[in-house]
Amino acid sequence: MIAHASHTERADAHEIGDVAAYMAKLGESARAAAAQMRRASTSDKNRALLAMADHLQRRRGEVLAANASDLARGRENGLDTALLDRLALNDARFDAMIEGLHQVAALPDPVGEIDGLRSRPSGIQVGQMRVPLGVIGIVYESRPNVTLEAASLCLKSGNACILRGGSEARDANAAIAACICEGLREAGLPDTAVQVVAITDRAAVGHLITMPEYVDVIIPRGGKSLIERISREARVPVIKHLDGVCHVYVDATADLGKALAIAVNAKTQRYGTCNTMETLLLDAPVAETLLPKLAEAYAEHGVELRGCERTQDILGGIVAATEEDWHAEYLAPVLAIRVVDGIEPAIEHIERYGSHHTDAIVTEHYGLARRFMAEVDSSSVIVNASTRFADGFEYGLGAEIGISTDKLHARGPVGLEGLTTRKYVVLGDGQVRQ
Amino acid sequence: MIAHASHTERADAHEIGDVAAYMAKLGESARAAAAQMRRASTSDKNRALLAMADHLQRRRGEVLAANASDLARGRENGLDTALLDRLALNDARFDAMIEGLHQVAALPDPVGEIDGLRSRPSGIQVGQMRVPLGVIGIVYESRPNVTLEAASLCLKSGNACILRGGSEARDANAAIAACICEGLREAGLPDTAVQVVAITDRAAVGHLITMPEYVDVIIPRGGKSLIERISREARVPVIKHLDGVCHVYVDATADLGKALAIAVNAKTQRYGTCNTMETLLLDAPVAETLLPKLAEAYAEHGVELRGCERTQDILGGIVAATEEDWHAEYLAPVLAIRVVDGIEPAIEHIERYGSHHTDAIVTEHYGLARRFMAEVDSSSVIVNASTRFADGFEYGLGAEIGISTDKLHARGPVGLEGLTTRKYVVLGDGQVRQ
Repeated sequence: MIAHASHTERADAHEIGDVAAYMAKLGESARAAAAQMRRASTSDKNRALLAMADHLQRRRGEVLAANASDLARGRENGLDTALLDRLALNDARFDAMIEGLHQVAALPDPVGEIDGLRSRPSGIQVGQMRVPLGVIGIVYESRPNVTLEAASLCLKSGNACILRGGSEARDANAAIAACICEGLREAGLPDTAVQVVAITDRAAVGHLITMPEYVDVIIPRGGKSLIERISREARVPVIKHLDGVCHVYVDATADLGKALAIAVNAKTQRYGTCNTMETLLLDAPVAETLLPKLAEAYAEHGVELRGCERTQDILGGIVAATEEDWHAEYLAPVLAIRVVDGIEPAIEHIERYGSHHTDAIVTEHYGLARRFMAEVDSSSVIVNASTRFADGFEYGLGAEIGISTDKLHARGPVGLEGLTTRKYVVLGDGQVRQ
Repeated sequence: MIAHASHTERADAHEIGDVAAYMAKLGESARAAAAQMRRASTSDKNRALLAMADHLQRRRGEVLAANASDLARGRENGLDTALLDRLALNDARFDAMIEGLHQVAALPDPVGEIDGLRSRPSGIQVGQMRVPLGVIGIVYESRPNVTLEAASLCLKSGNACILRGGSEARDANAAIAACICEGLREAGLPDTAVQVVAITDRAAVGHLITMPEYVDVIIPRGGKSLIERISREARVPVIKHLDGVCHVYVDATADLGKALAIAVNAKTQRYGTCNTMETLLLDAPVAETLLPKLAEAYAEHGVELRGCERTQDILGGIVAATEEDWHAEYLAPVLAIRVVDGIEPAIEHIERYGSHHTDAIVTEHYGLARRFMAEVDSSSVIVNASTRFADGFEYGLGAEIGISTDKLHARGPVGLEGLTTRKYVVLGDGQVRQ
């Protein structure tokens, strides 16, 4: 199945019958572009980002028309409302895309930074220089603004990228890609630094994730099943985000005012995000005082509670939480509550049922705060604040390509730095090894 | 095939008929040990290391006898001399093992270090804390001292590990493992923090590298075919070392004294190491002066030269380098030489034929040095020093579990820091997200 996305892609698509050959060609071009991008100056990269913003602004009508054609096709194909909503660009979303480009241009360039340059007894100096990863493959679903977001972050971090969006957004993606390429050319950078896969054949993803000679890392963005499939089949490292089964543990030493505010915010500020609390753990001595107040607050927000036996004893009339509930990422106004006896069973629960994403403790006890921070093995560990803070913008990364639940390379919110790596640099003056 | 390695392992081995179940049991124990190791104090970890050294010292006779039995079996099975040499422990190697434990104990503990703690506009403070990876699986070949080296580095960095050595070293490995476990117990740490796989069935490796629920990362140490097989089949991230096709480029702006010293040292200081130069690139204007001097020096060391046409024209009587030579990791007294026209074709050659391991430039030109550092995409990039410096000890890491040719996570020499990861820590005072 070949998408007739734009004039350029149409020509390419007719030429290629073979998906493997097409993907290899993209890979080869990306590898060559990566070598040029590695030495691109900060000002050229910023110039490209701002030129893209200009082109998008000028071609707003064209991009929105392409999006309208995607939406019409989507409705014909019976896509559900939620998917159509994610697919839709309106003026506000369009403005946010342009604003995003300006923000990325304003971020400091991580490339070239040298850390820890030290003299060694041999007389050499050794340090580590931050450099681009090379070629990044990004596989995502319906939202066309991801095309621009991903491209801008890869560009600023000096990488080339191959973007594979959802087929339902193919027309808008192609129109956005055209603006990106014009921006690159205007700044004298290779327009192959950002390539959007123009064929919608699913086999394209299979090739993209199994070309280690051309692609250094894959970042999948989308539903869990997409990510699991890619992780299973990739022959290239994957930076991925799986579940967010996040906890708040309220210790007996907590300030109850803070506990109440945090427990309510972590659940209700937004339901569908990965850093939303899904299970609340309450230390037994404060359960009796806190639970009725919490129940009242949650009732106001329409949050359904499911509790352990002790929670049920205190609150009465709430559903029993099952083993399944402790594992659940509801992404909905539902909360599991368990009463525990202190920090140890709390940490054990988090270790057993959690997804190592984001977990918080509420306590005024110095030693317990320290212990929770050291022992909870999650990508974000929080003391006395809402789990909802686990986010690249809140952390000050300036931008976020995703949140990694992996342990290697990047863990937690991934910004520009996560799209780079460090190599050793050695400065000598003729030294040889004895 | 079950190895009867020691009393404990013998019992285990008889109990298990099923390799998968045995490996899962090791994995489960390692996962539990990792949770305890994560909170182990620096002093307990150091105490365990020093206790291991004591036990090894006391049981020297026993360990050497076990090694002698491995060697006898190896001779019976017709192992070649090089392999038998790697397998053999003598007093000097034994002393080095004990000394290594003292060195690792003396290294700073990377765990718990918090970087870049900054206040955010929301009032939270955000930083990154260095924490253990969790469970590390190490697959290696004949050298029994790797058992101790790997165990000590994993322990110091707060990880649990599962070690799978070569079957030819099974008796020495088991005897060393017994000393390790006693050291752990003496310091009050779980003796399952270091587990040596007691069955020699090759299927054990297959299970070890496909248990993401129990193992966080695999580090293979050994020949290229072992590493390629593991990378291909692993369902867990792999930190690996492949080829070292290293280059020295001598620019026309080089100090010729330095160039001569570096080019000779990089090739001849040791032939079999991954950071040994395999191809020398000479800028045309200095080729005529340098080549005869180099040829003389290499002849003294018995290094065979293979050259491009221009090299042949200058030197005469040397073998022509083929396409294969530019790709070759000789690990032997053989050197490929190419005359190029400046830094650009030099970098192109390195990009095309190199293995992104270690590459050096010799130049007195500031701009060229800077350009080579930025543009050569290798794990170590060196200016005016021998490639042989690319080594954890020379870089000041204090210890080295290997050199990574990967780009993600760890690149170049991997010390204790490469066995850790960073999680975000957030310190608040009741903050909620608006």
